Amino acid sequence: MSGTLYGVGLGPGAPDLVTLRAARLIGAATVVAYPTLAGGDSFAREIVKDLIDPSTHEIVMDVPMTIERAPAQAAYDIGAASIASFLNEGHDVVCLCEGDPFFYGSFMYLFARLKDQFQVEIVPGVTSVTACAATAGMPLVARNERLTVLPGPLPQDELRVRIEGAESVAIMKVGRHLAKLRDVIEDLGLIEQAVYVERATLTSEKVLPLSQAPDKAPYFSMILLTKGTDPWL
Amino acid sequence: MSGTLYGVGLGPGAPDLVTLRAARLIGAATVVAYPTLAGGDSFAREIVKDLIDPSTHEIVMDVPMTIERAPAQAAYDIGAASIASFLNEGHDVVCLCEGDPFFYGSFMYLFARLKDQFQVEIVPGVTSVTACAATAGMPLVARNERLTVLPGPLPQDELRVRIEGAESVAIMKVGRHLAKLRDVIEDLGLIEQAVYVERATLTSEKVLPLSQAPDKAPYFSMILLTKGTDPWL
Repeated sequence: MSGTLYGVGLGPGAPDLVTLRAARLIGAATVVAYPTLAGGDSFAREIVKDLIDPSTHEIVMDVPMTIERAPAQAAYDIGAASIASFLNEGHDVVCLCEGDPFFYGSFMYLFARLKDQFQVEIVPGVTSVTACAATAGMPLVARNERLTVLPGPLPQDELRVRIEGAESVAIMKVGRHLAKLRDVIEDLGLIEQAVYVERATLTSEKVLPLSQAPDKAPYFSMILLTKGTDPWL
Repeated sequence: MSGTLYGVGLGPGAPDLVTLRAARLIGAATVVAYPTLAGGDSFAREIVKDLIDPSTHEIVMDVPMTIERAPAQAAYDIGAASIASFLNEGHDVVCLCEGDPFFYGSFMYLFARLKDQFQVEIVPGVTSVTACAATAGMPLVARNERLTVLPGPLPQDELRVRIEGAESVAIMKVGRHLAKLRDVIEDLGLIEQAVYVERATLTSEKVLPLSQAPDKAPYFSMILLTKGTDPWL
């Protein structure tokens, strides 16, 4: 009988924001798998390094950072084949995912390749959206309010339209798009309601009004914006 | 010195989807607080009942379910005053919150009343949005896709416009709005891409194509809809 593939969300980065289920699965795993970007360290593995048993086999998928998709696709093909061989031998494989596997997670690429042949279980995790809100002390949505999640790399015109039509907004993957995003938000007259959050829940976390955000932002940074004037009483 | 108020997210309902941090805080708490609706049981307390020490003092805030806000506001006023008295005596108070405290959470009403006088820490939790996606085996967003979260009680015309302009959509608080939501989504020609999820992560959970959803939905139900044709490879 084949093993089960677990796509396990690990939350935003603080090791104790991992769920009890994720911790149990990782601690008991005989095989874990995770991606690294362009030979770098794995942030996912770093979050749970104290939970992985030394005897656990680790499948490392090194994903090149290129604009064309083909090299990354080839890396996921190789990773999926390696995972499949363990599953076929009856081992469960626990795939480590920053945040939540189905929320901008690279696990989706493995899921697309393996879901039709194997049993897959997803363990949801705390997303960076609510982690940033917690860090910023900024309630996101209440009652009948709407929340829009936008990736920072979207074109400026689209961002403008989307932010204008939204109510509460979380902008992901800010990184090198910070200046563009700040311009759009300033143009819309919303800069006073926007907060910049960097590496939420890590010891290096930063929270600043967007107007005082640094010029260089890391990939793990977010802008939160709420338009409501409702004091949520 | 005053105690700290903790707003602790407990996730979607499965006891093992609580984070390690939440479990530690609840286990060590001398005072916990939680709302009940109209004299009913507390779903939040139910999630973590095995973690609460018998000696822990419990502040129960009974919130009436009325259309006017004033009776609920009065209940939160009373609850906040009770919490404040413990904080003033130097006790920490751990407030139990289904899902995430800042994502449609009633904790916001306590936060609004207490944040200016006391130290408040928020522990983010797994939201029902990613929990439902996990249960449904349905990736939500990848790369530069957008996600819109809409509450089901919104008026039909607004829902139509918002769903039409969105990419991936999560509709919360479906409950008695199911028929209206199904009509809107059917009219937009999107019914085949929509999934209905009820009580995600609980043993009574249900996942169905929206076209086969029951006529009566509980409050804890959601519709997920993705428009992308991208196989996310």
